[in-house]
Amino acid sequence: MPSNLLNELPLATEVEHFQTLLTRPGLRIERIVSDGQVSPPGFWYEQAEDEWLLLLAGQTVLEYEDGQQVALVMGDTLLIPAACRHRVVFTAPRSVWLAVFCTAEVAAAR
Amino acid sequence: MPSNLLNELPLATEVEHFQTLLTRPGLRIERIVSDGQVSPPGFWYEQAEDEWLLLLAGQTVLEYEDGQQVALVMGDTLLIPAACRHRVVFTAPRSVWLAVFCTAEVAAAR
Repeated sequence: MPSNLLNELPLATEVEHFQTLLTRPGLRIERIVSDGQVSPPGFWYEQAEDEWLLLLAGQTVLEYEDGQQVALVMGDTLLIPAACRHRVVFTAPRSVWLAVFCTAEVAAAR
Repeated sequence: MPSNLLNELPLATEVEHFQTLLTRPGLRIERIVSDGQVSPPGFWYEQAEDEWLLLLAGQTVLEYEDGQQVALVMGDTLLIPAACRHRVVFTAPRSVWLAVFCTAEVAAAR
């Protein structure tokens, strides 16, 4: 039976809500629900994995280290390459991200 | 800059529209736009890859070989394991699927 990413969203007013949807060698799909959270001042994400983002609901703004800001609305996708420093500077209430993390390394077959 | 999966949808009234969004070793993410298309009588998909589906718009119904039907609405996700025979028996106009195909084998690192 299908499960739905947009119905009965978990509360995320205290902290963002992370749910792993699928894992495979070198691959992880997550749903992230944000309710206004932003990255703390001076904090930068710097990940070992490529991150492919799809915003399913709400609005968000990301910032890169060079100061460039990228606003995302529903349906927008963005690839953040591994090691690309970025932070979250805005999330609207009830924002829902789909995040696909892919590692560059060779992993074992199942 | 982000690209949007829901704005200015391509016409798919003649044939379904497939767009590859990301490829990595063992991974392929596609957007599929359907406009009423269904699988031909007697046709079954039988894939070498796991397929993780997320319906972004519209409504669709899939059928498994045992006759079970699964209706999907916006936000619904479904994992179709490799080799699981299935077909599409209904797609509403302007249905948009996100499909993540993952192979069991992971190829060379980049």
